[in-house]
Amino acid sequence: MAKDTTRRGFIKAGFAAGAGLAAGQAAAASDPLITEVQEWKQQLGFGVDERPYGIPSEFQKHVKRRSVPWLTADPISSINFTPLHELDGIITPNGLCFERHHGGAAEYDPASHRLMINGLVDKELVFTMEDIMRFPRENHVYFLECAANTGMEWRGAQLNGCQFTHGMIHNVMYTGIPLRLILEEAGVKADGKWLLAEGADASGMTRSIPMEKALDDCLVAFKMNGEALRPEQGFPLRLVVPGWEGNMWIKWLRRLEVGDKPWHHREETSKYTDLLDDGRARRFTWVMDAKSVITNPSPQAPITHGPGPTVLTGVAWSGHGTIPQVDVTTDGGKNWHKARISGPSLDKSMHRFYYEFDWDGSELLLQSRAHDSTGYVQPTKDELRAVRGTNSIYHNNGIQTWYVNKEGVVENVEIS
Amino acid sequence: MAKDTTRRGFIKAGFAAGAGLAAGQAAAASDPLITEVQEWKQQLGFGVDERPYGIPSEFQKHVKRRSVPWLTADPISSINFTPLHELDGIITPNGLCFERHHGGAAEYDPASHRLMINGLVDKELVFTMEDIMRFPRENHVYFLECAANTGMEWRGAQLNGCQFTHGMIHNVMYTGIPLRLILEEAGVKADGKWLLAEGADASGMTRSIPMEKALDDCLVAFKMNGEALRPEQGFPLRLVVPGWEGNMWIKWLRRLEVGDKPWHHREETSKYTDLLDDGRARRFTWVMDAKSVITNPSPQAPITHGPGPTVLTGVAWSGHGTIPQVDVTTDGGKNWHKARISGPSLDKSMHRFYYEFDWDGSELLLQSRAHDSTGYVQPTKDELRAVRGTNSIYHNNGIQTWYVNKEGVVENVEIS
Repeated sequence: MAKDTTRRGFIKAGFAAGAGLAAGQAAAASDPLITEVQEWKQQLGFGVDERPYGIPSEFQKHVKRRSVPWLTADPISSINFTPLHELDGIITPNGLCFERHHGGAAEYDPASHRLMINGLVDKELVFTMEDIMRFPRENHVYFLECAANTGMEWRGAQLNGCQFTHGMIHNVMYTGIPLRLILEEAGVKADGKWLLAEGADASGMTRSIPMEKALDDCLVAFKMNGEALRPEQGFPLRLVVPGWEGNMWIKWLRRLEVGDKPWHHREETSKYTDLLDDGRARRFTWVMDAKSVITNPSPQAPITHGPGPTVLTGVAWSGHGTIPQVDVTTDGGKNWHKARISGPSLDKSMHRFYYEFDWDGSELLLQSRAHDSTGYVQPTKDELRAVRGTNSIYHNNGIQTWYVNKEGVVENVEIS
Repeated sequence: MAKDTTRRGFIKAGFAAGAGLAAGQAAAASDPLITEVQEWKQQLGFGVDERPYGIPSEFQKHVKRRSVPWLTADPISSINFTPLHELDGIITPNGLCFERHHGGAAEYDPASHRLMINGLVDKELVFTMEDIMRFPRENHVYFLECAANTGMEWRGAQLNGCQFTHGMIHNVMYTGIPLRLILEEAGVKADGKWLLAEGADASGMTRSIPMEKALDDCLVAFKMNGEALRPEQGFPLRLVVPGWEGNMWIKWLRRLEVGDKPWHHREETSKYTDLLDDGRARRFTWVMDAKSVITNPSPQAPITHGPGPTVLTGVAWSGHGTIPQVDVTTDGGKNWHKARISGPSLDKSMHRFYYEFDWDGSELLLQSRAHDSTGYVQPTKDELRAVRGTNSIYHNNGIQTWYVNKEGVVENVEIS
């Protein structure tokens, strides 16, 4: 019945070399197993009225968002990080989506929440949530990445774990209405070329968005992964700006203003621009370029099973489209192997890749390199630094390196 | 800028006739709006260390799984239901996936959990969770539907809400290893034609699965929607049997036995078979046929906005493949309209459909009808009864009818 004898042999070799689970051992293990079975049968679990809204297993308490206390002055205007090394597939569960607040995550009552559109429009309008729900809806899975994701790594390896180096990203299915429909409802005047989106949070977050993007694929979203947005993700309404930096995805969306030029507010001048070595700044660097990271093994997820069959996995994404290919190296770039992508390949969505290999117990230098559907290939950090210098903390999509020692312990390193 | 003038006019007409939000009203509304803005700005929200694992908004407490107390003798061996009318898109969030337990949902420590394979194999094997994680993984979105979903409706409209009539279904992305790899690792003997899967719960749930299905697309899964399985969904390990009735998706999976014939255990003889009028029983009715239901409007989600633009939405699925088409009627089947499907169309996954219409405030009889990729069309309940009688509670995939009165109130009804 063994169709794939190569794979079968591969796995068998591993178990023989590893924890000793292969042929002949089941008999030896059967007595303790039966004891366990008895214990299991004595455990009568909880019933269907106990958890009207479910929570993770008590054995998963270590799987959580984490902040870095020294990174910001106050947790109200701060960041926490998605535990990428604990996840698999492409969907980020809502409870683990990283948070970035500029004035705290507030709770707004959907019954009193309003969305206003004003400025260069034929009619200024105010919508209730019920009004929004009467427009035709769409569903899309999109990644949201903070422009500052991996920002601390510009000047070399600093944070020991992909949760901290790459965890300012999540990937969920949004339900919302095309922003285009709101704009058409109000009627954009001929000189209306820009849109200001404003949030209802204490920071009154605002960003300028070119009309071309607003009319293309932006959504005014009210659901993530099937249910209402979470408070920390802008409940009851957020802007979705596919493939563009997360700061533009205005949460607690309350106002849209149509204008004839960008507003140059704080978050698009002193922040979210890249200061170059010559003193000039790159601005309007909205699109998140192709990027990838190996999530396992990684500093928070060492190899604990010893030599033999080892699953390497990670995620890749691009603001320009899909990811048709990811390459992986275990020797710091001497040899590259094509990784296997498993799961839906969707536009501007996270992709999951795997590379299974037989670890011989020697030291490894792990890297991944994403190719996107435009043909762009993820650069090295040195290639980025040569062009952009090291002043900025934004838009670092360089190749990440993990060093694995002979014990399977993993560290964040840089190699040239 | 208005590309879609038809749609624009459609929506405009609605707002003019509806809650009065169209041209000229923004000025009148601006003073109260500014007051609200002031209140919003005073609300400094919570910081990034407050919720290491996020929870829904306090305004979403009504969105929950619900049980029907009179349905079963004890909540330990019972059912609760997914609130389909509160969801959108195709992903069911883990906290809202319906539960069906036969001996309670127990918490098993992954460190001591084992999966054994025995019977007609070359080598009996016992795997730890770490062993399982060393096999190559796959990611797939699949619906899981209980065979008894909609079972109470065989004898006419009984339960007033799609949560109760159709809520024994969820749709998540699973990460797991192909069951085929476990079977190949043990080596299935030539006469090994059936597989028994056994759970570690107090009921010791067992089901027989033909080897052909086991080698095809079944998964031994450990993650759902990116994170570990929830306790009530079989943490740390469950069987995924795509497109087949939920009872076969053994939770807390601890043992696989290879045999030469089916076991005929309780859950595949006295239960999960369909007793026909002539006294014979349909058995091994594993595949869940094409089905759909309108989730909004529905008895738990009436039309509250009055006449005008109205969004009708629902879900459709088939154990035989994808759903290329869903038809919708608002007049009890006199006229059928092709619904719009939005979101990924994946094999054996839920599909989301929409039909936007201009409600004139008159009574409606809403129905949806799914077509699957084999060409099969969802039947009426009467067509099913003509063939199968009304003894069984399983495999009711008949067309559901909602009656909407002039006030927008919705009831579960039957029409002939």
